[in-house]
Amino acid sequence: MSNTWGQMLKVTIFGESHGPGIGVVIDGLPPGVEPNFPEIYRHMSRRAPGQSELTTPRKESDEPEILSGLFHGKTTGAPLCALIRNQDTRSSDYDPAVPRPGSADFVAQIKYKGCQDYRGGGTFSGRMTAPLTFAGSIARQILADRGIYIGAHIKQIEGIEDLSFEIVDETLLASLTHALFPVLDDEAGRKMSDRIRQAKEEEDSVGGIIECVATGIPAGVGSPFFDSIESAVASMMFSIPAVKGIEFGAGFSITAMRGSQANDEIITVGERVLTRTNNNGGINGGISNGMPILFRVAVKPTPSIGKTQSSIDIRSGEEKELKIKGRHDPCIVPRAVVVVESAFALCLLDRILSNGEWK
Amino acid sequence: MSNTWGQMLKVTIFGESHGPGIGVVIDGLPPGVEPNFPEIYRHMSRRAPGQSELTTPRKESDEPEILSGLFHGKTTGAPLCALIRNQDTRSSDYDPAVPRPGSADFVAQIKYKGCQDYRGGGTFSGRMTAPLTFAGSIARQILADRGIYIGAHIKQIEGIEDLSFEIVDETLLASLTHALFPVLDDEAGRKMSDRIRQAKEEEDSVGGIIECVATGIPAGVGSPFFDSIESAVASMMFSIPAVKGIEFGAGFSITAMRGSQANDEIITVGERVLTRTNNNGGINGGISNGMPILFRVAVKPTPSIGKTQSSIDIRSGEEKELKIKGRHDPCIVPRAVVVVESAFALCLLDRILSNGEWK
Amino acid sequence: MSNTWGQMLKVTIFGESHGPGIGVVIDGLPPGVEPNFPEIYRHMSRRAPGQSELTTPRKESDEPEILSGLFHGKTTGAPLCALIRNQDTRSSDYDPAVPRPGSADFVAQIKYKGCQDYRGGGTFSGRMTAPLTFAGSIARQILADRGIYIGAHIKQIEGIEDLSFEIVDETLLASLTHALFPVLDDEAGRKMSDRIRQAKEEEDSVGGIIECVATGIPAGVGSPFFDSIESAVASMMFSIPAVKGIEFGAGFSITAMRGSQANDEIITVGERVLTRTNNNGGINGGISNGMPILFRVAVKPTPSIGKTQSSIDIRSGEEKELKIKGRHDPCIVPRAVVVVESAFALCLLDRILSNGEWK
Amino acid sequence: MSNTWGQMLKVTIFGESHGPGIGVVIDGLPPGVEPNFPEIYRHMSRRAPGQSELTTPRKESDEPEILSGLFHGKTTGAPLCALIRNQDTRSSDYDPAVPRPGSADFVAQIKYKGCQDYRGGGTFSGRMTAPLTFAGSIARQILADRGIYIGAHIKQIEGIEDLSFEIVDETLLASLTHALFPVLDDEAGRKMSDRIRQAKEEEDSVGGIIECVATGIPAGVGSPFFDSIESAVASMMFSIPAVKGIEFGAGFSITAMRGSQANDEIITVGERVLTRTNNNGGINGGISNGMPILFRVAVKPTPSIGKTQSSIDIRSGEEKELKIKGRHDPCIVPRAVVVVESAFALCLLDRILSNGEWK
Repeated sequence: MSNTWGQMLKVTIFGESHGPGIGVVIDGLPPGVEPNFPEIYRHMSRRAPGQSELTTPRKESDEPEILSGLFHGKTTGAPLCALIRNQDTRSSDYDPAVPRPGSADFVAQIKYKGCQDYRGGGTFSGRMTAPLTFAGSIARQILADRGIYIGAHIKQIEGIEDLSFEIVDETLLASLTHALFPVLDDEAGRKMSDRIRQAKEEEDSVGGIIECVATGIPAGVGSPFFDSIESAVASMMFSIPAVKGIEFGAGFSITAMRGSQANDEIITVGERVLTRTNNNGGINGGISNGMPILFRVAVKPTPSIGKTQSSIDIRSGEEKELKIKGRHDPCIVPRAVVVVESAFALCLLDRILSNGEWK
Repeated sequence: MSNTWGQMLKVTIFGESHGPGIGVVIDGLPPGVEPNFPEIYRHMSRRAPGQSELTTPRKESDEPEILSGLFHGKTTGAPLCALIRNQDTRSSDYDPAVPRPGSADFVAQIKYKGCQDYRGGGTFSGRMTAPLTFAGSIARQILADRGIYIGAHIKQIEGIEDLSFEIVDETLLASLTHALFPVLDDEAGRKMSDRIRQAKEEEDSVGGIIECVATGIPAGVGSPFFDSIESAVASMMFSIPAVKGIEFGAGFSITAMRGSQANDEIITVGERVLTRTNNNGGINGGISNGMPILFRVAVKPTPSIGKTQSSIDIRSGEEKELKIKGRHDPCIVPRAVVVVESAFALCLLDRILSNGEWK
Repeated sequence: MSNTWGQMLKVTIFGESHGPGIGVVIDGLPPGVEPNFPEIYRHMSRRAPGQSELTTPRKESDEPEILSGLFHGKTTGAPLCALIRNQDTRSSDYDPAVPRPGSADFVAQIKYKGCQDYRGGGTFSGRMTAPLTFAGSIARQILADRGIYIGAHIKQIEGIEDLSFEIVDETLLASLTHALFPVLDDEAGRKMSDRIRQAKEEEDSVGGIIECVATGIPAGVGSPFFDSIESAVASMMFSIPAVKGIEFGAGFSITAMRGSQANDEIITVGERVLTRTNNNGGINGGISNGMPILFRVAVKPTPSIGKTQSSIDIRSGEEKELKIKGRHDPCIVPRAVVVVESAFALCLLDRILSNGEWK
Repeated sequence: MSNTWGQMLKVTIFGESHGPGIGVVIDGLPPGVEPNFPEIYRHMSRRAPGQSELTTPRKESDEPEILSGLFHGKTTGAPLCALIRNQDTRSSDYDPAVPRPGSADFVAQIKYKGCQDYRGGGTFSGRMTAPLTFAGSIARQILADRGIYIGAHIKQIEGIEDLSFEIVDETLLASLTHALFPVLDDEAGRKMSDRIRQAKEEEDSVGGIIECVATGIPAGVGSPFFDSIESAVASMMFSIPAVKGIEFGAGFSITAMRGSQANDEIITVGERVLTRTNNNGGINGGISNGMPILFRVAVKPTPSIGKTQSSIDIRSGEEKELKIKGRHDPCIVPRAVVVVESAFALCLLDRILSNGEWK
């Protein structure tokens, strides 16, 4: 509790990594939307494993079956349910009695009293982000139809930094979604890849930072306090396994600025009111100000590594050496980019629908 | 929408900075709790302005009037409403047609169509954190009665760093709540104060980072995905005006670690299962693992500064120089410490009650 | 838990009958609404006690103080909080250890472990409908501005029946709100009044049925299943103390009809699609069909009566004769009419705002 | 919006009558529950069509596939998703341009702008109660394990009355679930069956009243106002298509009683506090008082009848005679009994879990 998120767009996810399937129910989609399935599947394949040597060689055929909410190729207004069957699972790779450090194994054991489906991380698996990506890709399409574009790049891997988003437009954002390893600076990208390859060789893993942006959001979306855009986006992002931090605009580095520097000066460009800088990430008082909404999330290194680690046997309490077999990502960040984008799309669509727009 | 937060503990805030009053309705408090009012007022006074030269000289007498939910000095189980009257307001200090950079003035104008109470920031005012502090102080007391202690310190001001929390116990956390400027390293604290003083002299402002921790939370509180502890805490923290980032455990710096380093090794200490490090900040898979829950929030510099800034007149669209008069904090961080602690207490109590504990 | 209702219009009530005050926070009101206070107070006075010999002689001055959400006489878009101070309470009239039959005394004792404010029914008091009437009167005004009118009459008292609503228009509905004892058939009204007078003389009480209607709701408001208009209205109506039943359209009597009779034939009148009859009360599949929305609620006789009743002493479990002193309504129905109307207005406004209309 | 119901037990339904499938996601089930599938399927078959000449001859094989939340035959604590595939659908039976009187055809057209899946009623279909029955049957099992038993009977068909529940025990309630046509008085049952048969012959339909009860609920479950047991149960019951009224305890007939008669006298039986009568249906102030919780719902006659009816063609607005082919229930009431029981079980389990019981 709870696997349901949202106010006007309710997203309910279900499933376990090695059970029959995983899926999502999306309630509140406007009727008459014609999902662009090739494009949706393209986004889902960006998340799918086995795309390059930098990710896990596990294969998933994540094409979902639409169980409801679609008629003559268009959304009906009723809840849309999509089911993804699980395949290619190797359940024998896990011993539930020895929790993997950094994973949810131990807390699952406590919370679910030993009844959890522990295979492959069960309901804590990163695989649960597949239905989220499906749902978010529909939301992204609806937003794009109204001129709102979302994109992201890998900002950092193990300390190696990419450039930051400066001027972002639809073309740049679209091109990033076509890159296997989306960065702004190719040289930085190569160094990052090297780090991932090195970690893989050492049976270890690395994490990184994803920077995500949306353009075209009109001023006035969101609310002060508990329904602030930041609150909504953050609550969603921390639902993505491995995310340990989020910052908007200048984020943590705004704390080293003076107010006179941090404040975004208000200017007029033609008819539009803009700000000269965007240290607030497009949000003041929880509400969009018309500038691009920009945030970064910190993704921790994949907990499942081949290197020997120390854990305990929860039956006896005794120390136990653990060497995780199975196939794991040396770095989850490249696959997480589209998950962050998709989850963000869900947030924005929900906030915009809650604003009473786009009836 | 929405000024209500929580599942089993619903907190509703209301009010505007220069209107008749501000307040909070707390629904879901267990019956029979005897609020320790001197202690609650002590916490509220930590947030109140005018405490030192480092904060605004405005005076507030924020002692709330309890309107309901209390009988014979104990909570009744019915909603507890507390009202704080507004006083000592200088409404003439503001011109609503020229939005202050970095503030919510412009978005309020758009969202509320010019009907917002713009005086003193209206409902976007930091003053709204007073009822939140009141509510959180009750939650903190309930938690303390069950051995859960919360504390925080100023981790950073304009780049000057305090030490990090290492071993935290009840005594340390309590002593921090008695400091006007809570830091772990006094020398760092002096430097920070100097920076604030300097910013004040230059009619400017600075921001900072607050590090907050809770000890004694049993393993198993929280949920995967949308009701994760991180999601709940983050959604609450971004309700606090000026917060632009949050990170749990090692946070953003975990992205520079290898998995073998970031993973917290699981150990047994007597009967208890602990981890050797706490890079995950006491949370795995959204659920508490029994270690201290630790996070940091980034607080931006106070937007209202005396220095001349550039804005526009929203009636004409013309550029306009702005020099904000009035009395403002050169740094909101010292006063925000108790707000973060209190808001965190509300999150924890809600998550614990949602877990079905403490019937 | 929970004293908060609604999705896009969140209504939070608080207070206890003999505590400092009762009140309501309304979140989600559109900005720029100019509350017609004389009209709102007129509606509140319809609920107030002491209006005629048929109701309790207790006096209440229920004029609320607006604490937030209003600026220059208009709603700001921020939460509007209204406070009503309690006065003229006679706390000595109650002995908490002997629960009054038909009241919430016993369940309050169990649920709140003896900590409840038992004076005057505490938070279970019918007095809590005063803030609900205040909030609903604002909603009613907003609805009327868009051509949606609400009205109600006393359909039945102790078996004496009034006529049913047939053709309803704005004028009829308005005139009913000006009647001390609103009925369609004056003769039936006189008989009802006699019954109430007779019950009063015998230190007893009677109940009745209220029929409520709204005209002007466009087709398409509401949802199938859990957010059906019926679900929303019913959940709200059962929040009103003493309501024990609700039915829409023909209601329970539809069960004696054949389908061919119950089905409302669809017709065209000019451009408008209507139905010849309105057995479904303006709702199909949970959604408004453009016909008047019509329902009836059953209100039980006031539990507090002067007649001797049998109860127990909860300390000893021993049987105890109970003769309730104090001043009570021999019939709550006349005062409940405006409460039903107001609560209904809140439901309709919330459903309409959730439909994304009236941004 | 919204197809999700509940606070601590979140139930999300999806599907359309003639789409690929219908289903339910249940979030918040305690871990370790071993669903008794033969018993669950038995309850589902009570709802299934084609059981007797009194219901539709359509066949459904409604055995659901469990997609998640079950491991080694026990609930895992993660969301349980069950999918029922659609079969045996005759989509050609419907012409969407001529809305069936009494159905949701017209409102669906307006709300969903012509994009709804109109086949077989789409998402408004009574078939959506199959997943609700599945979910409720698990809830019923969990309740029975704690001594809470639920049962119902047909109280009335087209004016023919059954007896009322008097003393109810587990055995009686269980035996009713095994009857094809559950009544307390067999003679009344025969007369009711005759009426249904007669309506069927005349290509017409009849409605009726279902009386439902639960025993064993401890005092103190529920809340005053918006989360009252009555509010929760009513909001759920009005989600069941065709329900047009609900009443608790004596319900509408309590309005003809005096207070001295309606008030349930409080007595002590051994250690237990009971009431002599149960006119309040086991609920005071929205909270259970320890007596059986009892309510009745009014079910309207099936709108789909063979008899010629008058409607319009929504394209032209012209009047149109309508003779519905297809196979329909002359009376939905016998099949709705288990739906009411199941939906009630969901309500009770949610309210009890929200009370913090049964951690």
